[in-house]
Amino acid sequence: MTKILDRINRPQDIKNLSFGQLTELAGEIRGLLIHTTSKTGGHLAPSLGVVELTLAIHKVFDSPKDKVVWDVGHQAYVHKILTGRRTQFDTLRQLNGLSGFPKRSESIHDAFGTGHSSTSISSALGLAVARDLSGENSNVLAVIGDGSLTGGLAYEALNHAGHLGKKLIVIVNDNEMSIAKNVGAMSEYLSKIRTEPTYTKVKRDIEFLLKRIPAIGESVAKTVERLKDSLRYLLVPGVLFEELGFTYVGPIDGHNLEVLTEVLTKAKDMNGPVLIHVITCKGKGYLPAEHNPDKFHGVGPFSIDTGEIIKKAGAPSYTSVFGKTLVEIAEQNKNVVAITAAMPEGTGLKPFSAKFPDRFFDVGIAEAHAVTFAAGLACQGKKPVVALYSTFAQRAYDQMVQELSLQKLSVVLALDRAGIVGEDGPTHHGLFDYAFLRHIPNMVVMAPKDENELRHMLFTAFAQDGPVSLRYPRGAGVGVSLDEPLRELAIGKAEKITSVENKKMAFFAIGAMVAPCVEAAALLEKEGIPAAVINARFVKPLDEEMIRRLARDIGMIVTVEDGVLAGGFGSAVLEYINSQNLNWVKVLRLGIPDKFVEHGKRSELLEMNGLTAEGIKKSALEYLHQFGAK
Amino acid sequence: MTKILDRINRPQDIKNLSFGQLTELAGEIRGLLIHTTSKTGGHLAPSLGVVELTLAIHKVFDSPKDKVVWDVGHQAYVHKILTGRRTQFDTLRQLNGLSGFPKRSESIHDAFGTGHSSTSISSALGLAVARDLSGENSNVLAVIGDGSLTGGLAYEALNHAGHLGKKLIVIVNDNEMSIAKNVGAMSEYLSKIRTEPTYTKVKRDIEFLLKRIPAIGESVAKTVERLKDSLRYLLVPGVLFEELGFTYVGPIDGHNLEVLTEVLTKAKDMNGPVLIHVITCKGKGYLPAEHNPDKFHGVGPFSIDTGEIIKKAGAPSYTSVFGKTLVEIAEQNKNVVAITAAMPEGTGLKPFSAKFPDRFFDVGIAEAHAVTFAAGLACQGKKPVVALYSTFAQRAYDQMVQELSLQKLSVVLALDRAGIVGEDGPTHHGLFDYAFLRHIPNMVVMAPKDENELRHMLFTAFAQDGPVSLRYPRGAGVGVSLDEPLRELAIGKAEKITSVENKKMAFFAIGAMVAPCVEAAALLEKEGIPAAVINARFVKPLDEEMIRRLARDIGMIVTVEDGVLAGGFGSAVLEYINSQNLNWVKVLRLGIPDKFVEHGKRSELLEMNGLTAEGIKKSALEYLHQFGAK
Repeated sequence: MTKILDRINRPQDIKNLSFGQLTELAGEIRGLLIHTTSKTGGHLAPSLGVVELTLAIHKVFDSPKDKVVWDVGHQAYVHKILTGRRTQFDTLRQLNGLSGFPKRSESIHDAFGTGHSSTSISSALGLAVARDLSGENSNVLAVIGDGSLTGGLAYEALNHAGHLGKKLIVIVNDNEMSIAKNVGAMSEYLSKIRTEPTYTKVKRDIEFLLKRIPAIGESVAKTVERLKDSLRYLLVPGVLFEELGFTYVGPIDGHNLEVLTEVLTKAKDMNGPVLIHVITCKGKGYLPAEHNPDKFHGVGPFSIDTGEIIKKAGAPSYTSVFGKTLVEIAEQNKNVVAITAAMPEGTGLKPFSAKFPDRFFDVGIAEAHAVTFAAGLACQGKKPVVALYSTFAQRAYDQMVQELSLQKLSVVLALDRAGIVGEDGPTHHGLFDYAFLRHIPNMVVMAPKDENELRHMLFTAFAQDGPVSLRYPRGAGVGVSLDEPLRELAIGKAEKITSVENKKMAFFAIGAMVAPCVEAAALLEKEGIPAAVINARFVKPLDEEMIRRLARDIGMIVTVEDGVLAGGFGSAVLEYINSQNLNWVKVLRLGIPDKFVEHGKRSELLEMNGLTAEGIKKSALEYLHQFGAK
Repeated sequence: MTKILDRINRPQDIKNLSFGQLTELAGEIRGLLIHTTSKTGGHLAPSLGVVELTLAIHKVFDSPKDKVVWDVGHQAYVHKILTGRRTQFDTLRQLNGLSGFPKRSESIHDAFGTGHSSTSISSALGLAVARDLSGENSNVLAVIGDGSLTGGLAYEALNHAGHLGKKLIVIVNDNEMSIAKNVGAMSEYLSKIRTEPTYTKVKRDIEFLLKRIPAIGESVAKTVERLKDSLRYLLVPGVLFEELGFTYVGPIDGHNLEVLTEVLTKAKDMNGPVLIHVITCKGKGYLPAEHNPDKFHGVGPFSIDTGEIIKKAGAPSYTSVFGKTLVEIAEQNKNVVAITAAMPEGTGLKPFSAKFPDRFFDVGIAEAHAVTFAAGLACQGKKPVVALYSTFAQRAYDQMVQELSLQKLSVVLALDRAGIVGEDGPTHHGLFDYAFLRHIPNMVVMAPKDENELRHMLFTAFAQDGPVSLRYPRGAGVGVSLDEPLRELAIGKAEKITSVENKKMAFFAIGAMVAPCVEAAALLEKEGIPAAVINARFVKPLDEEMIRRLARDIGMIVTVEDGVLAGGFGSAVLEYINSQNLNWVKVLRLGIPDKFVEHGKRSELLEMNGLTAEGIKKSALEYLHQFGAK
């Protein structure tokens, strides 16, 4: 029955639709969004919220001549459907299918690739300036959520855009949410705008009043003029944006196609930077998502009827074990505080925030601030943990160097979603963390082999002086039992999973790669090749004694990491071996080669990168045959 | 004659001074600042601007119980003088002497270490929250320049602080400058506040007016109420900060001790976050600095009488060669645009900005935005160069990954002040760039051996598709002549400085380390040990053919880099050798070990790290004797 949608193959196809037809189309698009993501999983609620907005944008503007940058990009599904990707939409987030984010290589309509928050105004400003330098004539739009506005990069760009005064349209998609409920003064400011009494009425009242002011000489007349100027503050709710050089328009109803179309058409003819404040409902049109926009922000496959997530029975996730363990630790140590950058749910901090609301801080999508704020807390003896996704931790690299490491402050970095994350693809894999952390002096870099070790590692992290990072993958743990009580692991000491006597090779694996190495060793054993398995635990400090022993007793080491090989864990092992002149050791390094990993199932991507048990076994065997041990 | 200053050994010593005495003391402090920095060099102008402010802070507050965080920290000299470091002040920025920045390990009065911009509000908020969690009672102040307010991190912190509502005093030291003349909408906003007519007068006028409004019923009365509310916008100039949850106080004269003391005393008793807007004159009290605050921001030794910098005759700086070459390239290619993060002078972009004002962008202290803005420009065929100091480029790491490399956008990163910078110390050395850049896919990482090669490398960079970084050190070039015309270097190809026939070892050096290796080879030659010297040019892609040849023909490679060894250039060489199973090669890696390098003369620090010709020779010789070649 999706009759109108079936005819939409490019943005032009909606130009001549009536508002009635567009409304019908909006319903059809929602159906497709719900239907598809119920199978593929994905960012349903954000996209449901911008159906009308996206339709209005493509009705009023001419993509790809006019350029639309979608901040973060998880709300761009509707844009994808309208720009020639409708028939492929069922491949969303699947290997070789459509990306879950805008991607320049995927479509000419994706003006800029996104995935991380708060970049849209910066890049759109670049597009706008390039346009003017080339003497071209087109429109550039950035669509940014109120959540993304909490990121400093968005402010840096507003500050620059307001200064340059170039023609640029910034649409603030205000749904009162980042991923969780939005936080911060900016959010409260937007909320105030939304809830103030209607401005038209006030304006009428004031004009009435001004007319009644008696004429009493020159000096007062001047004051009246000044007063009228000041009324701008009363009449224009977005004074904050106005002060930054933007013309503020809003707030407007983001689900009213006629109003949206009218406002966007007007904005097209305005000069200089314009900020349009659009109020939307995250999850609009699908009740389970409207009621739980947080849950449906990024969701796995679910039942359309009930809105229930289709859960796989299995081990608890690393995230939940982290969250629970943190509560345990915090119960014992009142100095423990927890910080999230707009991800209380995703990072597993909900139980902590419920139990210790005063010690929990959601700073907004502001990773750099999260780390520097933690550093300040640590100066005064607090024990902060900053829980971030590995990929987003990249945004606080400088703060990790300057604040945490240079000042040797005791802050725990809990990096979730490390390694290959799967369907979210290259903007979201956490593959660089070992490489960007291990060269920072004073930083301890560790990763647990399973969810039980995560518990003890977290406990260990809090017991250290100085900064400590630990990283763990997305999804379910290995399924081991969780033993009690929490204990401190020796810093820089690896764990022998097997003996190292009489082996042909040793797997020296870190984090989530230990488990497949155990399997790989079992497979090799079957072929008569005894292999040791060592859980490295630490990328930094390395267990140097263990490496020397493996070098001496076995002579062939296979390092395995779900991170980039360049500068990563295996590279650290090479450096140590080199520094000790253990040149005879054969070292095979397995990990992610020097290119971006695309999106697809985590298992598929691990397999493609040779990081399954079978892949590891195969590589090790080939290497053994080719180069042998000592 | 510095009679009062001689008695100031701790903050308490100024408590009982009269304003007259404080004014005298301010003059004495200025004398000491000028006298010392004329010899040591340093950040004179910023510190001259805050003499009265610092005196007022220490008069009103009680450090170390009350905590003051100095943003960037280059204005903290007066604070150092007042907090027990007066007699050591002549050791400023010298090896084992006082740091040029606040440093927790240096004094209990340095509440937080700084060096990079825009961190103060974040860290101060952390201090304030920790205080409240511990139920303590003290004041926390962040002193931040208007320039630092352009950094997104400052905004992230304002947003969070305004939301939390904790007691916190933010002092905006507004001198209309970052390092250069300040830019951005925020700066214009502050400027507008400064230049508006006096608010007291307006307030009187309006009250007079309101009294004359005839009483005409309930509805109008309500409107009058609302109107009165709105006058806040007129009467309180800092509405933007007010909207973010701060109580705004200002603008106030930053050189009037009585006013400052009064305002700070009041602020002490205010609850919630307060923002005090203080107007200062950068360079105050030393005319050459007042007239050229840009030049005297960070200055080398100078003549006090004339204000002339004491120049060493010598080769042109890398910075100036970069700047001139860029103009040459931009003359030929109209797509070239240049971006700086508040460093037009420091990065050598002044000539470019003068010649191509429309193609020049100073984005403020906003490195992340600089890179993402460049990415947007590159999408439309522009050829942006982002000129940053290496250490500040750390703040745009994620943007380099997500925007430049993942999208393969042709942006040139020109990283100045790479390697050891000298007196500015650990917050300013550019030692991590090879390590954090080379693991990013698609990124070309190069470094010229001298200022002439810089020219051709820059030309080469613009000729590539995809992101390219080049880095070069602070200060004078090697002194070679600059040859014409500009030519494209082969990507991933090293340069043989000497032949590689019949050598005992090969120096495989990158960037500024090539020159000392040439000298080291000459020293070794004298001792009868022939050594080849190869200019690597590229950290990525490596010249693999060259490495294989050196392995085969010489068998001992000494990699030399002025960057961290962990994950750096030498590490890349090890990785390649490992991947090719060239195990027999002896590799000695020289560079910076895994700890922060302190401040001191560049030559001293290079020597301490064994990176002079003599040091390199010595290490190579020891290694040769101990482990030999093949």
